[in-house]
Amino acid sequence: MAGDARATKRRLLDAAIAEFAQHGIAGARVDRIASSAISNKAQIYHYFTNKDGLFDAVLGELAEDTQREAPIDAADLPEYAGRLFDYFVDNPVKDRLAKWYRMESDRAALVDAVTASTNNKLAAITKAQEAGLVSTRLTPVELLATIVHLSALWSSMTPDMSRHAKDIPRERRRQVVVDAVAALLRD
Amino acid sequence: MAGDARATKRRLLDAAIAEFAQHGIAGARVDRIASSAISNKAQIYHYFTNKDGLFDAVLGELAEDTQREAPIDAADLPEYAGRLFDYFVDNPVKDRLAKWYRMESDRAALVDAVTASTNNKLAAITKAQEAGLVSTRLTPVELLATIVHLSALWSSMTPDMSRHAKDIPRERRRQVVVDAVAALLRD
Repeated sequence: MAGDARATKRRLLDAAIAEFAQHGIAGARVDRIASSAISNKAQIYHYFTNKDGLFDAVLGELAEDTQREAPIDAADLPEYAGRLFDYFVDNPVKDRLAKWYRMESDRAALVDAVTASTNNKLAAITKAQEAGLVSTRLTPVELLATIVHLSALWSSMTPDMSRHAKDIPRERRRQVVVDAVAALLRD
Repeated sequence: MAGDARATKRRLLDAAIAEFAQHGIAGARVDRIASSAISNKAQIYHYFTNKDGLFDAVLGELAEDTQREAPIDAADLPEYAGRLFDYFVDNPVKDRLAKWYRMESDRAALVDAVTASTNNKLAAITKAQEAGLVSTRLTPVELLATIVHLSALWSSMTPDMSRHAKDIPRERRRQVVVDAVAALLRD
């Protein structure tokens, strides 16, 4: 891909990240993304086919980014949950993107990079269970679902609970997540 | 309130529940709610002031309904989490409403009925901790946040995790939630 094309694609993706994080899949508008990227709708259709294709590209990047910044270590799953917590606290826009993906999961398609990332994590947990490093009380799917969910504990609260929790320092929030996963793994 | 007025208000609330569950606060349209309730925008403004007032009324009903159908028992918090799980599985529209309330918590206002319900739960947990019935490793706010969050474990998954989890029966899903809360409470 020529440098100009690559730069245009990058600007479109960055504009899409901001737009999808703000408005979700259903609420995002392709014309706003095009104008914010100093591009046009024809280029979006050229590179990404349609709005859903653009969302898939954004989600694929998110999955790869998360996997790089918060890699799984099945021998220390509490700390993995702590890393996920850190990643989403430090990247609030990506936190919101991930929330939309779950919120609109009936509309959202399977994205290859996300599927691959999930399969990789399930394989790591399975292997650690077979090696006797991790409790087998929960299946790999049950464990992964609970760990990922717990890592998002503090970022999905009602306004009144947020108010009650506002003085809990970041370090303590992280500890609550890590300890909850540790408790889960005790037989 | 005359019977006609009461009936109109009820129809508006029911239409609002469906519209907010589908589109959230930002995406909901007052004119769709009015037409679906066989009413008009003037009546919405008369009874609820504006769209936010209508959302607050819907949320207030949801809080009262949840408190009635899934009351807290601080002496048995794992089972309380199980009841919350049941309530939201049996009421998917309300599950979605609660999700929007958390998703748009920067936009959403504090709703009196929700605040009262939360204060009631925090007081119950505090009392149970003082009576030595519940571990004090977590504060009441930390405990309530984690329990409520865990009860929503299975309804906030990415499409690919949903696919992995699709054959897990309801009873087992409930058990995973109940056991996770029980593990949390062990000292």
